[in-house]
Amino acid sequence: MNVLVAGGAGFIGSHLTDALLDANNFVVCVDNLCLGSVDMIRHNLKNPNYIFYELDMCEDTKLDELFKKHSFERVYHLAANSDIQKGGGDPGIDFHDTFLTTVSLLNAMRRHNINELLFASTSAVYGDKPGLLKEDAGDLRPVSYYGASKLAAEAFISAYAAMNGMRTNIIRFPNVVGPRLTHGVIFDFIAKLRNNPDELEILGDGNQEKPYIFVSDLIEAMLMMSYKECVDIFNVGVKTSTTVKRIADIVCEEMGLGRVKYRFTGGTSGWLGDVPKFQYDLSKIHANGWMAKHASDEAVRLAARSAI
Amino acid sequence: MNVLVAGGAGFIGSHLTDALLDANNFVVCVDNLCLGSVDMIRHNLKNPNYIFYELDMCEDTKLDELFKKHSFERVYHLAANSDIQKGGGDPGIDFHDTFLTTVSLLNAMRRHNINELLFASTSAVYGDKPGLLKEDAGDLRPVSYYGASKLAAEAFISAYAAMNGMRTNIIRFPNVVGPRLTHGVIFDFIAKLRNNPDELEILGDGNQEKPYIFVSDLIEAMLMMSYKECVDIFNVGVKTSTTVKRIADIVCEEMGLGRVKYRFTGGTSGWLGDVPKFQYDLSKIHANGWMAKHASDEAVRLAARSAI
Repeated sequence: MNVLVAGGAGFIGSHLTDALLDANNFVVCVDNLCLGSVDMIRHNLKNPNYIFYELDMCEDTKLDELFKKHSFERVYHLAANSDIQKGGGDPGIDFHDTFLTTVSLLNAMRRHNINELLFASTSAVYGDKPGLLKEDAGDLRPVSYYGASKLAAEAFISAYAAMNGMRTNIIRFPNVVGPRLTHGVIFDFIAKLRNNPDELEILGDGNQEKPYIFVSDLIEAMLMMSYKECVDIFNVGVKTSTTVKRIADIVCEEMGLGRVKYRFTGGTSGWLGDVPKFQYDLSKIHANGWMAKHASDEAVRLAARSAI
Repeated sequence: MNVLVAGGAGFIGSHLTDALLDANNFVVCVDNLCLGSVDMIRHNLKNPNYIFYELDMCEDTKLDELFKKHSFERVYHLAANSDIQKGGGDPGIDFHDTFLTTVSLLNAMRRHNINELLFASTSAVYGDKPGLLKEDAGDLRPVSYYGASKLAAEAFISAYAAMNGMRTNIIRFPNVVGPRLTHGVIFDFIAKLRNNPDELEILGDGNQEKPYIFVSDLIEAMLMMSYKECVDIFNVGVKTSTTVKRIADIVCEEMGLGRVKYRFTGGTSGWLGDVPKFQYDLSKIHANGWMAKHASDEAVRLAARSAI
């Protein structure tokens, strides 16, 4: 199959690309190398079934040329800012990188009659909502520009799909970890501990608790999607979760550091726009025959190990 | 109070302006005169408590100048394409006029620390959903670019409000009718019957059935909102509804036309992206002490009468 992976040189996009190539697809990768990097995809650059274009998805004319040149059968859209904390200081970052990239892609798909889309969405669309989050939950009030950008993107996907006969899957990712991480709490802790192995600053009170999925589990879920519905939305995650303090413990253990002093900045959330605790209802994706192989703590440990 | 009415030279915006001036506010009106017109606001142009600026809300620099010059205490945002059918042919129309105007306004409010916003949303955010629509309904799948643009705007309002301490009211309008209508089914029927009083083409099968609110009722609801919550969402509408065929009957009666032959184009919806039937659960706004004075049929009749 001839597919486009938008954001294909990023952490998750590069793993997805590897899996798509393994499954004998022809993969065109587009990335603006804002968070992604050539290091993530170097191993594929000589693969005859792979082409990489350095391109911002919002460059409509160039995107049009790409769609003309390659007859895509499906688009995987993972291009986004994805660093929620960074986006908090400037709403323009997620507006452009997370939201506009989606609209630009939808317009290209519409112009070129491409009808299959997988969209990487996020738990952040739910906002700071208590209880088990189910796909059909209402009253979604995102509290970050990132969450708003993804929810807005979902809204546009719904209308483009209905108006143009597209079949789309929206997967709401939890925190994703694994080799090639570019940012996030594990990445930060390792950097801080390398700088000072005696003390670790932890944002918030350390009790923030989220499910962490290992990237290979997520990729498996992405590959098993069927494209039957106008819009089908899935939470993909793990039943277990890990507190930030537990992540610190795991990272210290994996780095062989025994007596690190933790210094908490305080407050229930790590930064403005952070959702300190959430957990998914996963019954829909489980009923579809997928279940994560790694628990949350295990995913964190494997990711830390690969990054040290 | 010093307020900005975005889209203030449009059908609803001009009525809102009249009411705000009656209540002793200083009103700055911004409109790009795309759907709005000077005819709608001519009666206020010499009012010392009123200023009109012809401006596209997406012109950030000019909008900044406006926010610097006038210290707004509240923003009423009604700027939008609002002609859903027209927007169906080109997704760029609602993207710019309905969605981008909102983001541009939110950015200006953020830069200038303006914290109170009333946003004109729509039933179209619910998509084609059966049953009584409640504000906290989930699984919102807009089927028009207009509905997507409004739902996306709601998502961004949620994040800007949370990140910047804004207090916002989102009012989901049903079909609104009354004097100064610029488009829509009543407007179309009158134009067609003026052209040919013997036969009337009706889009769809005529059984599309929606609640029509008289504009003065809607304005009353908009004026009684308090600004306490980060995001408060209200359906505003009427319990009754009117079929398209009944609208044709009412328009013919008001025009004094006895024997008009109806020709239906067929199909359950009038056009691609149309939601043929819906009805609101209005318990939230009713509990807040507001109820529409005019039933749906009555609103249609009064609107037809004022347009003939």
